[in-house]
Amino acid sequence: MKRVDVSIVMGSDSDLPTMTLAGETLKKFGVSFEIRILSAHRSPDDTARYAKSLSKRGVKVVIAGAGCAAHLAGVIASNTILPVIGVPMKSSALNGIDALLSTVQMPSGVPVATMAIGDAGAKNAALFALQMLALKDPKLEKKLSGFKHKLLEDVRRKDRKSYITFS
Amino acid sequence: MKRVDVSIVMGSDSDLPTMTLAGETLKKFGVSFEIRILSAHRSPDDTARYAKSLSKRGVKVVIAGAGCAAHLAGVIASNTILPVIGVPMKSSALNGIDALLSTVQMPSGVPVATMAIGDAGAKNAALFALQMLALKDPKLEKKLSGFKHKLLEDVRRKDRKSYITFS
Amino acid sequence: MKRVDVSIVMGSDSDLPTMTLAGETLKKFGVSFEIRILSAHRSPDDTARYAKSLSKRGVKVVIAGAGCAAHLAGVIASNTILPVIGVPMKSSALNGIDALLSTVQMPSGVPVATMAIGDAGAKNAALFALQMLALKDPKLEKKLSGFKHKLLEDVRRKDRKSYITFS
Amino acid sequence: MKRVDVSIVMGSDSDLPTMTLAGETLKKFGVSFEIRILSAHRSPDDTARYAKSLSKRGVKVVIAGAGCAAHLAGVIASNTILPVIGVPMKSSALNGIDALLSTVQMPSGVPVATMAIGDAGAKNAALFALQMLALKDPKLEKKLSGFKHKLLEDVRRKDRKSYITFS
Amino acid sequence: MKRVDVSIVMGSDSDLPTMTLAGETLKKFGVSFEIRILSAHRSPDDTARYAKSLSKRGVKVVIAGAGCAAHLAGVIASNTILPVIGVPMKSSALNGIDALLSTVQMPSGVPVATMAIGDAGAKNAALFALQMLALKDPKLEKKLSGFKHKLLEDVRRKDRKSYITFS
Amino acid sequence: MKRVDVSIVMGSDSDLPTMTLAGETLKKFGVSFEIRILSAHRSPDDTARYAKSLSKRGVKVVIAGAGCAAHLAGVIASNTILPVIGVPMKSSALNGIDALLSTVQMPSGVPVATMAIGDAGAKNAALFALQMLALKDPKLEKKLSGFKHKLLEDVRRKDRKSYITFS
Amino acid sequence: MKRVDVSIVMGSDSDLPTMTLAGETLKKFGVSFEIRILSAHRSPDDTARYAKSLSKRGVKVVIAGAGCAAHLAGVIASNTILPVIGVPMKSSALNGIDALLSTVQMPSGVPVATMAIGDAGAKNAALFALQMLALKDPKLEKKLSGFKHKLLEDVRRKDRKSYITFS
Amino acid sequence: MKRVDVSIVMGSDSDLPTMTLAGETLKKFGVSFEIRILSAHRSPDDTARYAKSLSKRGVKVVIAGAGCAAHLAGVIASNTILPVIGVPMKSSALNGIDALLSTVQMPSGVPVATMAIGDAGAKNAALFALQMLALKDPKLEKKLSGFKHKLLEDVRRKDRKSYITFS
Repeated sequence: MKRVDVSIVMGSDSDLPTMTLAGETLKKFGVSFEIRILSAHRSPDDTARYAKSLSKRGVKVVIAGAGCAAHLAGVIASNTILPVIGVPMKSSALNGIDALLSTVQMPSGVPVATMAIGDAGAKNAALFALQMLALKDPKLEKKLSGFKHKLLEDVRRKDRKSYITFS
Repeated sequence: MKRVDVSIVMGSDSDLPTMTLAGETLKKFGVSFEIRILSAHRSPDDTARYAKSLSKRGVKVVIAGAGCAAHLAGVIASNTILPVIGVPMKSSALNGIDALLSTVQMPSGVPVATMAIGDAGAKNAALFALQMLALKDPKLEKKLSGFKHKLLEDVRRKDRKSYITFS
Repeated sequence: MKRVDVSIVMGSDSDLPTMTLAGETLKKFGVSFEIRILSAHRSPDDTARYAKSLSKRGVKVVIAGAGCAAHLAGVIASNTILPVIGVPMKSSALNGIDALLSTVQMPSGVPVATMAIGDAGAKNAALFALQMLALKDPKLEKKLSGFKHKLLEDVRRKDRKSYITFS
Repeated sequence: MKRVDVSIVMGSDSDLPTMTLAGETLKKFGVSFEIRILSAHRSPDDTARYAKSLSKRGVKVVIAGAGCAAHLAGVIASNTILPVIGVPMKSSALNGIDALLSTVQMPSGVPVATMAIGDAGAKNAALFALQMLALKDPKLEKKLSGFKHKLLEDVRRKDRKSYITFS
Repeated sequence: MKRVDVSIVMGSDSDLPTMTLAGETLKKFGVSFEIRILSAHRSPDDTARYAKSLSKRGVKVVIAGAGCAAHLAGVIASNTILPVIGVPMKSSALNGIDALLSTVQMPSGVPVATMAIGDAGAKNAALFALQMLALKDPKLEKKLSGFKHKLLEDVRRKDRKSYITFS
Repeated sequence: MKRVDVSIVMGSDSDLPTMTLAGETLKKFGVSFEIRILSAHRSPDDTARYAKSLSKRGVKVVIAGAGCAAHLAGVIASNTILPVIGVPMKSSALNGIDALLSTVQMPSGVPVATMAIGDAGAKNAALFALQMLALKDPKLEKKLSGFKHKLLEDVRRKDRKSYITFS
Repeated sequence: MKRVDVSIVMGSDSDLPTMTLAGETLKKFGVSFEIRILSAHRSPDDTARYAKSLSKRGVKVVIAGAGCAAHLAGVIASNTILPVIGVPMKSSALNGIDALLSTVQMPSGVPVATMAIGDAGAKNAALFALQMLALKDPKLEKKLSGFKHKLLEDVRRKDRKSYITFS
Repeated sequence: MKRVDVSIVMGSDSDLPTMTLAGETLKKFGVSFEIRILSAHRSPDDTARYAKSLSKRGVKVVIAGAGCAAHLAGVIASNTILPVIGVPMKSSALNGIDALLSTVQMPSGVPVATMAIGDAGAKNAALFALQMLALKDPKLEKKLSGFKHKLLEDVRRKDRKSYITFS
């Protein structure tokens, strides 16, 4: 069985275009992951069983994306002591404010680390997972420093390109 | 083991003052119920096991009250085909709009019948349960007709009492 | 006169594409229904008369869809003791949050069982009606169990299809 | 039977403290009114019958106050061609935003003239009714001009009293 | 100078497609009107002067449409005792919720009768103006009764056309 | 006539406790101001005349506080080219979100510089006025630098006082 | 080194289409500016250094546009005593309400003058900067008076063009 | 110098009652921490310097609490690659929805793991920090499992205590 550091789960295959961004980010850093579709509401036992198995399988972090009454991250968090990161999907009539509140407003005792709604949230979930893993992985820490520097260089390059002065 | 027609569950004992209103309403109609504290996030296995047992025990309807990222009704609905009524608690910084959206915005396939935020919602959850049970219980149907008439008489009495005319 | 178990009503023919999903769901389960256009605001007497006639006609459940200041479900609920399920339409400038609040925030005494905004809500309204009817119909109960299992199988199939691992 | 120019209705006697402000305003202008408690949801037939009778009784304007899923103004408007003014009550967990949207977002064909949430709305409803009645009542028009002047004088008086300069 | 019963004003020519619906509605009822573009913020003196002149010119009702921080209706209402109807435009990043609150939340003393956001609001503003004018115009009252009946017939026709039964 | 650098206006004397904070801040910096009560809706001509007179009187900046459908800042901005700072009051059923949107969502051409809702907004309005005046007043610029340093020292002092370490 | 009166900064090159409108407005008035891309989150040191250098370089005003958790304006304001104008971008799932609140709700001590969401906000930010600069520049003051007059003439021209009367 | 595993920072000493709950939670698990008051807006350099020093000092995780336009967590996250957990304070006119959006809607590249508004969020921030630290600390992992079990036992105890049945 292959090593999996990060588990990426989502409630529906319609979340794939967004949640795949989390996988792509992990790939760039060479961190292992798996992508699973598990529904808090339609496959609750599978989800609970999966959540409970994670720790034993050596998984370190879970990223869970869901929309509407987004319970997936909360359900996983209630079945593991691994850190769970929640990504609210934009997929509802309310543009994701329902998913954001359903994910972030967890009661005392069972935290879900919530990211921004949609694509930025999915990418940041991966980065946050990497930041956690880097706590005991100096190589990864170095890569993250490099990434942070690249972010800086990107802004600087765009700044030079867009620079306008009028006087 | 005693007969239980309606199961009233809530996520925390801080929900008792509101959710007890549901029990009191059922009592007035002579319908059996039990009140349980079960947390989607802190006692997930108990909650799932309880939800799965309901049908076999002869329970007909579930009323679930929860606040914040209110997942309780959804978790129960995902573990039973009994009708589940959700009551959003007012208990958060956001006055229950988070609980409302977490309860009502369920994805296709797993409905939760959502009531108003807070006390009115708890009472109406019981009434809605009674309306369902009355579908095969002519005596209960009659009591509900009587209740509806009493609502009318109450309004009429208040109307007479408050009636003012100025000319 | 044909038997009608579920009445599906809506405030405008512009709600048909969404509300038809409720009818299609009932059809799959072989449960009889009728689809009516009745407006709380433009045909109030027809609506009240219709609501009052339902019980005598043997109808068991009402599904009412409306948008904006969505009063239809509430008006029907005030004229019958049958259980009424409300579906907020997404059709306003505010994407249905107005319809959601107009439907769910019913005062104590007259419940409306509210579903999610839009298409998911319409389908779930039908499923919730089926769950009620199944309380006294073992065949339907079995079909619902089958449906719940199919939901599970669908998620599992999508999970297998989308499964990715990187290590 | 006494003459009644303005009908003030509300859904519950808990709305009396706010809605009485509408009556007091009318009284100051010597315009006749009556105050009624009628519920769109608990006394629907009384409400419809009342609404239909208004025109024949010589009533000119209706002011309807309601909270939560505030349907009262809409129900009256659907049963009369008299102008109906809606006042959203602040009485819910959501501080009246539900009542505001339930009152103002009426569909094309059945207008409700909506005022601010709560006390200011109740007073303004009366003033708006007076503005309508003044269209064919020069004496009332004069009184309204006087009232507008008094508003101005009040602000000026407060301005003089609070005037501070620092230099 | 031609008679003008209703003044339709708006803050920008981008509001014309919506506000023209108010004019078309008045035209169907043979009620005179004029359409003006006047900005609370860009032509404040013109707007105040216009508002003050309305009563003397024999105008009876004002319909004012504006978006964003929608002050137009309020500014006109502060300069006349004629009844002012406000129509919130949908034209902002926030889909008109800003215009709705800016229009409806008027302080005590200066009412604005607020309609729904957008097209339905513009049509209903005209209907509400007609309802006011009908208070002293029996012919118009009759036309409005006819219109209300036509609304009913339209719903009935659509109901017959869409009627589906499955059993 | 005394010199007035900053005009502080508000729509009602109920806004005084909050808006006085702006005056107190200016006083600490030795900048002249006057406090006026002027209502966009109840004293519109006074308000327009006042706004038009400001520039000639040598006033440099206006701070306008208002609640609900907060039009005061916008009305002043439409009558002067002086910079106008808006402070949304918290005074409505909606806790000031209505005043915030009514103040900030100004259309292109007539800016209002909007501050936070309530007390923080009133103090910051004064600070922002001071920042503008400091552009041509080196002494004031120095005082502002001193104030900024004091803010820093306050935080540092509180940090030292609250510092806790556990290990 | 060229003179720069106004600094226009934004968090991302995706903000350019909107923020360029601020530059174009300044150009029409012959006021010097520079456009920079600086990120509160990705180039924090560059941003702080830039903010601190502004005063010494003779820059008078800063316009900062950012979306989502829009911290750019606040970060600049915390590093300078120059007046900072914030423009919330519309670029998120929530259409800019997040950027608006992140920009306007600044704590006491560090004001950000917030404009409307999106394009109107960017144009108005430039106009507000011009209003500040005009406090010590009579030529600019005159141009602003001319601009205000042109706004008026534009509305009047559109009014004449759109004028319709029906009687 | 003492070992510090978790840094708890907040923008103001008014946040202490809430943020102290995070410290108390860490204490129960025997994990070292320090509590600092650092303001993104009033002590920006101190904050940036502090954030940059964390990694070298051996700190593993940061918990940052702030209200209103809550930038603190974001500012720290932009200056370190350590994982940053954000806690939105309830302290504004808007009850913390502004702080929530300012904290969670971070742009791609700089994640902040956001918790619920207020006290529950502060406690959960500590728990989430513990979950991260437990990834390389089997003793802590065991304690967390014990805590999770205690949560379960608490619910069960409350359930037994509140259990009511009526039949």
